[in-house]
Amino acid sequence: MPIAKLSENRYGKSRVRVMRVTKHDDHHDLDEWTVQILLSGDFETAHTEGDNSKILPTDTMKNTCYYVASVSKADSIEAYAKALIDYILSRNAQVTGAEVIVKSHLWKRMTIDGQPYPTAFLRGSDEMQTTRVSKTQNGAFEIASGLDGLYVLKTAQSGFVGYIKDSLTTLPETTDRLFGTVVKAEWTYTPQAIAEGLDFNKVRTHLRETMLATFARHDSLSVQQTLFAMGEDALAHTEMIDSVYLLMPNKHNLLIDLARFGEENSNHIFVPTDEPHGTIEATIVRG
Amino acid sequence: MPIAKLSENRYGKSRVRVMRVTKHDDHHDLDEWTVQILLSGDFETAHTEGDNSKILPTDTMKNTCYYVASVSKADSIEAYAKALIDYILSRNAQVTGAEVIVKSHLWKRMTIDGQPYPTAFLRGSDEMQTTRVSKTQNGAFEIASGLDGLYVLKTAQSGFVGYIKDSLTTLPETTDRLFGTVVKAEWTYTPQAIAEGLDFNKVRTHLRETMLATFARHDSLSVQQTLFAMGEDALAHTEMIDSVYLLMPNKHNLLIDLARFGEENSNHIFVPTDEPHGTIEATIVRG
Amino acid sequence: MPIAKLSENRYGKSRVRVMRVTKHDDHHDLDEWTVQILLSGDFETAHTEGDNSKILPTDTMKNTCYYVASVSKADSIEAYAKALIDYILSRNAQVTGAEVIVKSHLWKRMTIDGQPYPTAFLRGSDEMQTTRVSKTQNGAFEIASGLDGLYVLKTAQSGFVGYIKDSLTTLPETTDRLFGTVVKAEWTYTPQAIAEGLDFNKVRTHLRETMLATFARHDSLSVQQTLFAMGEDALAHTEMIDSVYLLMPNKHNLLIDLARFGEENSNHIFVPTDEPHGTIEATIVRG
Amino acid sequence: MPIAKLSENRYGKSRVRVMRVTKHDDHHDLDEWTVQILLSGDFETAHTEGDNSKILPTDTMKNTCYYVASVSKADSIEAYAKALIDYILSRNAQVTGAEVIVKSHLWKRMTIDGQPYPTAFLRGSDEMQTTRVSKTQNGAFEIASGLDGLYVLKTAQSGFVGYIKDSLTTLPETTDRLFGTVVKAEWTYTPQAIAEGLDFNKVRTHLRETMLATFARHDSLSVQQTLFAMGEDALAHTEMIDSVYLLMPNKHNLLIDLARFGEENSNHIFVPTDEPHGTIEATIVRG
Repeated sequence: MPIAKLSENRYGKSRVRVMRVTKHDDHHDLDEWTVQILLSGDFETAHTEGDNSKILPTDTMKNTCYYVASVSKADSIEAYAKALIDYILSRNAQVTGAEVIVKSHLWKRMTIDGQPYPTAFLRGSDEMQTTRVSKTQNGAFEIASGLDGLYVLKTAQSGFVGYIKDSLTTLPETTDRLFGTVVKAEWTYTPQAIAEGLDFNKVRTHLRETMLATFARHDSLSVQQTLFAMGEDALAHTEMIDSVYLLMPNKHNLLIDLARFGEENSNHIFVPTDEPHGTIEATIVRG
Repeated sequence: MPIAKLSENRYGKSRVRVMRVTKHDDHHDLDEWTVQILLSGDFETAHTEGDNSKILPTDTMKNTCYYVASVSKADSIEAYAKALIDYILSRNAQVTGAEVIVKSHLWKRMTIDGQPYPTAFLRGSDEMQTTRVSKTQNGAFEIASGLDGLYVLKTAQSGFVGYIKDSLTTLPETTDRLFGTVVKAEWTYTPQAIAEGLDFNKVRTHLRETMLATFARHDSLSVQQTLFAMGEDALAHTEMIDSVYLLMPNKHNLLIDLARFGEENSNHIFVPTDEPHGTIEATIVRG
Repeated sequence: MPIAKLSENRYGKSRVRVMRVTKHDDHHDLDEWTVQILLSGDFETAHTEGDNSKILPTDTMKNTCYYVASVSKADSIEAYAKALIDYILSRNAQVTGAEVIVKSHLWKRMTIDGQPYPTAFLRGSDEMQTTRVSKTQNGAFEIASGLDGLYVLKTAQSGFVGYIKDSLTTLPETTDRLFGTVVKAEWTYTPQAIAEGLDFNKVRTHLRETMLATFARHDSLSVQQTLFAMGEDALAHTEMIDSVYLLMPNKHNLLIDLARFGEENSNHIFVPTDEPHGTIEATIVRG
Repeated sequence: MPIAKLSENRYGKSRVRVMRVTKHDDHHDLDEWTVQILLSGDFETAHTEGDNSKILPTDTMKNTCYYVASVSKADSIEAYAKALIDYILSRNAQVTGAEVIVKSHLWKRMTIDGQPYPTAFLRGSDEMQTTRVSKTQNGAFEIASGLDGLYVLKTAQSGFVGYIKDSLTTLPETTDRLFGTVVKAEWTYTPQAIAEGLDFNKVRTHLRETMLATFARHDSLSVQQTLFAMGEDALAHTEMIDSVYLLMPNKHNLLIDLARFGEENSNHIFVPTDEPHGTIEATIVRG
């Protein structure tokens, strides 16, 4: 009798990079994507016997990323991910389910002498637009889209008071602190919206603007409160999503003690730090 | 009626770094840890009203890491994580559950003129020893330990044949390829072993050696097969664990086509690559 | 007689991070800088005897970065670097020369509902604005400013033909390739311009725009040719600089062979790569 | 009359990665190298006119790295770099000088059941062995070898007192601190040693051991003093080198103030930090 057996397992290809140039008559568009494909299925004998007869090589998945990028003409990362899944599921009956994650990197058209230049681009920030699409052979698409690496900072309307004090407390209360965070957001589209179809790029743009506006305007009593307000406003913005997950690390900026040098620090000189950082995460759902 | 409500949520402190020097009469020991603490609990009004009265600041969690490192004399990362959780849960009734992840970085004592030097150390590889310990207020400890960043490579006993070929296949079959991977492993201790107590460092060392031996000796037909064999041998090694999760990205080394230059490549010159990479993950449980 | 003696040596502090908030009545401004200070001087006995009596601790240099950021009200990184050097040289006679490098990170004011928001900011790209300022005790300031990490890409007007072919050549000629590079530029201000004073921010903005326009518009026959044209146009733009150093790695985008899959690749699907990369560097001086 | 002219310039290929397996009857050896090639020469018209007729493509340099790795059978990174330079200079009369930098990454043979396993390897630390070899068409080889990324730490025999105190001083004096640094070293071989030939690997190993022993044993009054002692002992070790450059950033470990929590910190709990860091560099020459 075997001592061990296979439980949950997946395999696939990660960090497949694709640069797509779409050539119009008078200008080019540019997309840079990083793709991950993960497959579930009947892979037991692959693990226990080294039987590769049901294994689609990850190298072929890589080629699939390139091929589908060329033939699909997808106008969003969601459409591209769906096309990838359809292609793989339709050709591989041994695969019971597939998940595709696409991250889109920011490129902005250059402005030269006040005019958009048709074929030159500037890399944007480290913010990425993301989607995570999954499907089983006979199931419907599930789509969660979002953004990651959105680094924002507000210099007013942020404080932190009234928290627990104990023998290890050294943090002073403040009603005026910098609030910097690198937002990761992921919202889940409703089955109905997915079934009826929607303009993913448009919804994404609006949700991003909505959450940025809330971040800027919120009179923040804590990261938790601002995070919740951002999720709440996202849900209020559109019926097409039914939940928002937000991860907002607190990227601390430490106030320098200038009094040691005979100067007052009127909350104007800080040390930005990367570690340690607070970690705040929550999922907001429709009430 | 509110449009939104709080669902799953956690908060805490990440990337807290601790360097601990333990001073013995004739030598020092050195530990470098990176710690993450995440708390669950009654934090609803913190999100919805900005009420921080039940919020233990993450800055205090950071101080807790330092304080407990000093007073606990923990002899393993598991013992340290347990002490952190006990300290926080006992003082914070509003916290229903805590999870602590500790990663230990490799430092090796220097050998000078053939002798171990008592107070000088060399940094090791990027391999980390890890533990993930969690507990609810009235529950028992759950402990999953492992390692991460263990970069290994074998130059023989590895091939990949018999896989699916289709119109996008370009990968040639081979019975002689480099097999490089960066192992992440996490095994789950049984409730009984945790209750009775065990030597975490000793078990960790033996499991690591067991899995490395299997990696080296296995006649590998695929990453999946070698991964399963490693997990199987880990489970066979000790009854104290009941499952092993393994993540083994396939870090490809591409064979250079030297024939273009009139040379034969007898599998001796490769280009190591970081992206894209295969991703293979599975959990092996007792059969 | 000693076997060894001290030759060139320097010491200082690196990666000092400063976040400065400047508060106006109706809005805030935000600067994030990373600073390096390196000192030369009479430090021989510090090395040979452990005599620290002439050593200004690097910890004090760090404090100097914070203090000068508060009191100087510098309106440019060049002014800030000069203030740092003046402060240190005037108080440390044993220091014969100082060099300060400041890198400024991009933060952009948020636009909310079409209006600039007074106290909220978005992180920009990884592009940094840089300056390297040096001075000896009785000498004049030398100032070289520039930018780093400016990632740009053009999808047209770029080819590479007519190069040397030999037995190791595999690169096909092309008159239509992607041209991506991460520009590092450093221009040297003339002694006269420094003595008379100038608006560093304004010159920097114009030089950046000039070089971007040349990059976009140039009918590029090689990275070298475009690099030279960019430097030439920078020198033509202003008499205040007398040389431009440019480093432009060739960030290759590899054309995917879709013909293997029965598709034509009309230069629209590429794999962006980070390594290996071409390295092209040159200094352009006034003719 | 042209406004601009070309001054110093170079081009080449960076981050070329090579994995070489050397197959012996009963075991394999493994080398992983990262290579950079930079060429100087008659490239003026390439810059000013886009004339590529004297340009060896960087893609061909990449192929040269692979080809020479296969045919040269080099037994050291120095021999490999020399072979690369000889190959390129002999075939490219337009190239007046070439510099090759090779960095070798650490792989260690696995020990399984107490025995070295012939074909399995473990990645070592981030320490790299380095060489920088240059030559003009009719000149002799110049060779500077060293190491980089050697992260070491001593927990005793290190203090820092007697330094300058001023109004910005906050650092307390200490006779017991952690001394952590990531050593970069580069020694220059004498023309005579290069001409006569030497065992580069053997000298490298001995110089590394010599400097590590000095680091461990030195009663350090400052980083500067320990750095000098290490360079001095390197020069004393062998006549084959005539100078040593050392860069030793001071990787600070901050003592935690446990007294706030009623605990004494007997120099045993620290926070390791990456930034800011001290930077100390010097060249030690024969006295």
